[in-house]
Amino acid sequence: MERVAIIGASMTQFGQRDAWIRELLAEAGSACLDDAGVAADAVKHLYVSNMASGEFEGQTGVPNALAHDLAAVPAYTARIDQTSASGGAGVYAAWQSVASGASDMTLLVGGERMTHKTTAEATDVIASLTHPAEYKHGVTLPSFAGLTARHYLETYDAPREALGRVAVKNHSNGVDNPHAQFQKEVDLDTVLESPIVADPLRLYDFCPITDGSAGLLLCPESVAREYTDEYAVVSGIGGATDTHVVHERADPTTMGGVVNSSEEAYRMADVGPDDVDVAELHDMFTILEFLQSEDLGFFEKGEGWKAVEAGVTDRDGDLPINTSGGLKSKGHPLGASGVAQVYEVYKQVLGDAGARQVDAGTGLACNVGGFGNCVTTTILEGAV
Amino acid sequence: MERVAIIGASMTQFGQRDAWIRELLAEAGSACLDDAGVAADAVKHLYVSNMASGEFEGQTGVPNALAHDLAAVPAYTARIDQTSASGGAGVYAAWQSVASGASDMTLLVGGERMTHKTTAEATDVIASLTHPAEYKHGVTLPSFAGLTARHYLETYDAPREALGRVAVKNHSNGVDNPHAQFQKEVDLDTVLESPIVADPLRLYDFCPITDGSAGLLLCPESVAREYTDEYAVVSGIGGATDTHVVHERADPTTMGGVVNSSEEAYRMADVGPDDVDVAELHDMFTILEFLQSEDLGFFEKGEGWKAVEAGVTDRDGDLPINTSGGLKSKGHPLGASGVAQVYEVYKQVLGDAGARQVDAGTGLACNVGGFGNCVTTTILEGAV
Repeated sequence: MERVAIIGASMTQFGQRDAWIRELLAEAGSACLDDAGVAADAVKHLYVSNMASGEFEGQTGVPNALAHDLAAVPAYTARIDQTSASGGAGVYAAWQSVASGASDMTLLVGGERMTHKTTAEATDVIASLTHPAEYKHGVTLPSFAGLTARHYLETYDAPREALGRVAVKNHSNGVDNPHAQFQKEVDLDTVLESPIVADPLRLYDFCPITDGSAGLLLCPESVAREYTDEYAVVSGIGGATDTHVVHERADPTTMGGVVNSSEEAYRMADVGPDDVDVAELHDMFTILEFLQSEDLGFFEKGEGWKAVEAGVTDRDGDLPINTSGGLKSKGHPLGASGVAQVYEVYKQVLGDAGARQVDAGTGLACNVGGFGNCVTTTILEGAV
Repeated sequence: MERVAIIGASMTQFGQRDAWIRELLAEAGSACLDDAGVAADAVKHLYVSNMASGEFEGQTGVPNALAHDLAAVPAYTARIDQTSASGGAGVYAAWQSVASGASDMTLLVGGERMTHKTTAEATDVIASLTHPAEYKHGVTLPSFAGLTARHYLETYDAPREALGRVAVKNHSNGVDNPHAQFQKEVDLDTVLESPIVADPLRLYDFCPITDGSAGLLLCPESVAREYTDEYAVVSGIGGATDTHVVHERADPTTMGGVVNSSEEAYRMADVGPDDVDVAELHDMFTILEFLQSEDLGFFEKGEGWKAVEAGVTDRDGDLPINTSGGLKSKGHPLGASGVAQVYEVYKQVLGDAGARQVDAGTGLACNVGGFGNCVTTTILEGAV
């Protein structure tokens, strides 16, 4: 089977935007086509990653509206939702559309508008993905993060400061990302002295509420070559669930969806964790970066925090993680995040990441829905 | 490329159900696996067709919950939404997952719970798919149907009674469908004397508000043969959009999405309209059955109504349409409808449709989102 290539990518300004979902999607979609130099009427399939435009804005049917706004009608469209991993699921859907032969040019746009809601309202929409019993008892995703962080720190004898260093590192990277919501450094004291949200996690352990969108253009490798000689190949991709009810997991510090989806992606790409040069992980909460870096096989179980402390995951370390700034500083517009992760990896493997550039031939993106409920892992290789 | 087979199908009781979305999905998913004799742990991908569980029930993340309820974890899951054509989009996603090689066993479950809402509330959720300007001026989908029906009747000199006969025919078919919401005949006078909703359309020209779910199990043909020698093949499938703003269409009696998606499906299946033996069309409103029967190429433009009047689309006619009872009598639980259409065609091409059975080797399902905004067409052939 022919390999699937990515020939264009875009990412809008993340943050508080004066634009509704339809404008956000059109902005990223249009920029992505421009980036690739591909006309809208060449698009055969158009997927939109979005969790909750209905709940957030009372507007559904946004893929069809986007087809209209981009002048891509009669391109086929659908919305792909996998809660906070809708972006990664969109990447998987777009990959399948090309790999199956259904489409020879697929545009994926992920986006979400959230900042017009209060934090409580937005948290409530996100919490609707949990089991009703969890929700009823107030166990929202931040609560799970606090419980898991405490368990992790105790089990692996890790200091609280290690979590803070994830925030410090990712904010540092975000300074060089012009699209990031927060383009400013934070120091460890600021993180450790910020207000408690879910003990031991504090405000700076959490990603913000964000508006934004991102796009990717996928096609068969033979078609890619007609447009450019600089493209990335989706060399591996996989997806997997973990239990819907978080307390049913044998080990709360292991995310089964990350383990299973990455094993599938590694197998397909015929690479292992050691071959990955750069990675975008789903640091919705600082603790999640530790768990994923271990469950992806980058570090032994319980050792992820040591890698962060030792600077291994810094931009000048052996395995830079979240060079984009991560969800932590870049922001987390639900449907956009998984797409923006692949945007960053795409830029890195093509050597087009500007001030954030690291030495990367192979990159990985891990997008986590819920509290690890459903995960996609994508591996890219540059074909420059 | 190896062909994609369907080896199991299910449909729950449609109507007013005392069950929430999670129970509805689990019921159809479990029944579908039982029908195929396939264990839950063989499922690799699990897709859920659903438009609005968040808006209707405040619950999102239902694909992950379904994976849990069926004991299909760690199967990959995602939700596919294309408003009222979410079911057809799910069929397309499931087909792509198998055809791309990503999955060798994909379960698709479509479902929606709606009857706990008032008709006004449900209509409001559905109308959120329209352009805000349309919505603001009260042009909901029933309004479009009324306008289009009037235009069709005038343009093609068709009598009002012809629309009524669609309802009469589909109700007559629904009598033999034990899963249908309405299993009762209606006569033409009842239709023509029912309350006006959107002139000239009356209550019996509209499908009801419905709870329900349906399932399909897809795999490569070689895998199908390991389980059974009675399966259907998805010989053709395609999807296409039309303008998001309905008034921008050159001819309001032509649904471009139906034309384009069916042309793609016919080409892939290497068949034409004349080869279709049975079809399930999206008769959300009676007028839509005329439009689709013409845009699919079954009848000349403006002649669809004559075919209904002449009995051509009756169960004993040359081209039976909506043997299931259609959305009109079977009901229309948004995410389930497109899946249930393919369920009916699957039963027909396998000769397993009981009292509704017609002579069918090739069948077609056309699922319409919005007012033709996005459409999928699926063609099945029996491989008995």
